[in-house]
Amino acid sequence: MNASSVRARCEPRVEALVRGLRDRGLRFALLFDRDNLRYFTGFRVNRVIHSVLAVSADEGPVHIVARLDFDRARQDGWIDRVIPFAEDTDNPLAVLRPLLADGPDRIGIERDAVTLAQAEALHALSRRHPEFVDIRELTAGLRLVKSAAEIDVLRRAAGIASKVMDEVRAAIRPGVCEAELSSWAEHLIGRAGGEGASFEPFLMAGSNAWLPQRFSSRKRLANGELVLFDMGAIVDGYCSDITRTFAVGEVSEEQTRLFDVAHDAHDAGIAAVRPGIPAGDVDRAARSVVEAAGLGERFPHLTGHGIGLSSHEGPIADRGVSTVLEPGMVLTVEPGVYVPGIGAARIEDMVAVTPTGCEVLTDAPRGLRAGEG
Amino acid sequence: MNASSVRARCEPRVEALVRGLRDRGLRFALLFDRDNLRYFTGFRVNRVIHSVLAVSADEGPVHIVARLDFDRARQDGWIDRVIPFAEDTDNPLAVLRPLLADGPDRIGIERDAVTLAQAEALHALSRRHPEFVDIRELTAGLRLVKSAAEIDVLRRAAGIASKVMDEVRAAIRPGVCEAELSSWAEHLIGRAGGEGASFEPFLMAGSNAWLPQRFSSRKRLANGELVLFDMGAIVDGYCSDITRTFAVGEVSEEQTRLFDVAHDAHDAGIAAVRPGIPAGDVDRAARSVVEAAGLGERFPHLTGHGIGLSSHEGPIADRGVSTVLEPGMVLTVEPGVYVPGIGAARIEDMVAVTPTGCEVLTDAPRGLRAGEG
Repeated sequence: MNASSVRARCEPRVEALVRGLRDRGLRFALLFDRDNLRYFTGFRVNRVIHSVLAVSADEGPVHIVARLDFDRARQDGWIDRVIPFAEDTDNPLAVLRPLLADGPDRIGIERDAVTLAQAEALHALSRRHPEFVDIRELTAGLRLVKSAAEIDVLRRAAGIASKVMDEVRAAIRPGVCEAELSSWAEHLIGRAGGEGASFEPFLMAGSNAWLPQRFSSRKRLANGELVLFDMGAIVDGYCSDITRTFAVGEVSEEQTRLFDVAHDAHDAGIAAVRPGIPAGDVDRAARSVVEAAGLGERFPHLTGHGIGLSSHEGPIADRGVSTVLEPGMVLTVEPGVYVPGIGAARIEDMVAVTPTGCEVLTDAPRGLRAGEG
Repeated sequence: MNASSVRARCEPRVEALVRGLRDRGLRFALLFDRDNLRYFTGFRVNRVIHSVLAVSADEGPVHIVARLDFDRARQDGWIDRVIPFAEDTDNPLAVLRPLLADGPDRIGIERDAVTLAQAEALHALSRRHPEFVDIRELTAGLRLVKSAAEIDVLRRAAGIASKVMDEVRAAIRPGVCEAELSSWAEHLIGRAGGEGASFEPFLMAGSNAWLPQRFSSRKRLANGELVLFDMGAIVDGYCSDITRTFAVGEVSEEQTRLFDVAHDAHDAGIAAVRPGIPAGDVDRAARSVVEAAGLGERFPHLTGHGIGLSSHEGPIADRGVSTVLEPGMVLTVEPGVYVPGIGAARIEDMVAVTPTGCEVLTDAPRGLRAGEG
């Protein structure tokens, strides 16, 4: 993507942010959240490196990047003012002093994205003891409803995840180890054009699944186990997320019943998704299926979460959540059941809310059968 | 690893932490840093999930984990008191109220590992307006010198990284894309027994390397380019880190000279590592080689960093750093040169400081030649 198309995409986002700041009586904000940095600057950094975006209602944005990223930020970015900071100094934020010393009394900030050490360093740079005003609800709100272009990117990310899921399904067999399969998925994501995995992919078999463990281990898959695989691919910064449950060889009727309950709950959750309902209703639709099967206590997590530049964002589909669904919101539906001694089952898909219901973005086969043929 | 060996390894670490707290007049600490959580609890969680360790000098440790991780923490962990928190609630830290409400006036905390939102939530749980006392220097100090057992694990992590590096070297050829190779490395890490990659591995070719870009893109390798590949593997939580520079096909004399400068600087840095010298001397040894070649301005980063449960930790080998090296410290040596229009070169190895010098833990071939045969 060239710098002018990045500008076309990102400048209106900063303008919307500035309007939101003005509405809150703010004239200045500092953003530290990595995913918001990408949203507003269009600039990709690796997951270890931080950058900061300063947005002044009067003077526009200033992009603070690591010294090593400076030339690339100037070359690829749309923001004209770029300031490099030295990593591994005692105070990398010192470059903000000219903006803060006699600067604003109130600074918009995402309180859950700035550390106590950073907040104290910022305070020390200002002569004014600025008040930090939380703007997470503003920035999260800007990203809650996706544009058609964003949904298109999410559809591509979901497509890669679906393809990779089906390739891993074919490779499932007794004797192969969890980490070998999940790292194979990481390679398939890169080969299919993804930037990387949305999160550390995890494949859990048997007792690891019902614990549940939430990472892949050296355990080898054994005949008669249920295997749960949860993964996603990133395209242009946007994440996908999918889970499937597979049988290794032959499984019991009890295990098949668990799978059926999870599958039915998934279908009920997806059938519930439409504009105008609270997100909690999606949870209720899925959870009531699990409860009717007498497994309510075995479903110890939410039904779904929003997804976009962050692998977890709004809207959350959990008990009592009142966020009203709107066309353009994208979320997962992923009820699961975990029964010690038997197994675990979860089916997860990503859906985009449409004017009349939803579009399911992930379309890998949902059946229990794995392996070749 | 079973729970009793986890206890044998981790309980003395918590005891050392408590002694350090007492030395600082503290009787209570809250740890949020993921790598320290693993250090003190021995408990592995995925990279998205958080947990918290509360340590009371009088009442011992309390491990706060996500509800989904509760059964596993009870089964695999050594800490007897485990409290589950609900994720995706407005205040997951509310479970700490019984410990904080009439609790300590002063709380040891790692200020760079707790967000402003978390700090404010903690304040609101206490009736005492507790003071947060930074204990990063204490926890970092406990981890700075590795035990023989830790070095053994780091040696295994370095061994996997070396093996994977050499397999990727063999796969380098014109036409293959950066992300395909780096995701292939992720799979090889999983196949070789690693828990995962120490960080998002990145392979940068040609102009991407001299920028430098620090992530893998869809760019295809071209004849005559220098390629830089930086990656590492995790074993039992401990990270390795290695960089090699390769030629795609034939490269110019100018490019070969860059490589030779980086290689000589690397050798000089490693030759300098021994107990009793300030870490800054390692930087000086490597940097002076680059400067003597007239490329000082083209070496825009530090020479090395410590490595252990964190991919970057102390000691830092950079200009003027006075930390004195001791046997058992483990750090990287990775000088690099980046020249627009020509290429980039960096050779990175991990070394453990020994009583007489150092042991190089990463041993993949360091030559420029790539591809099969």
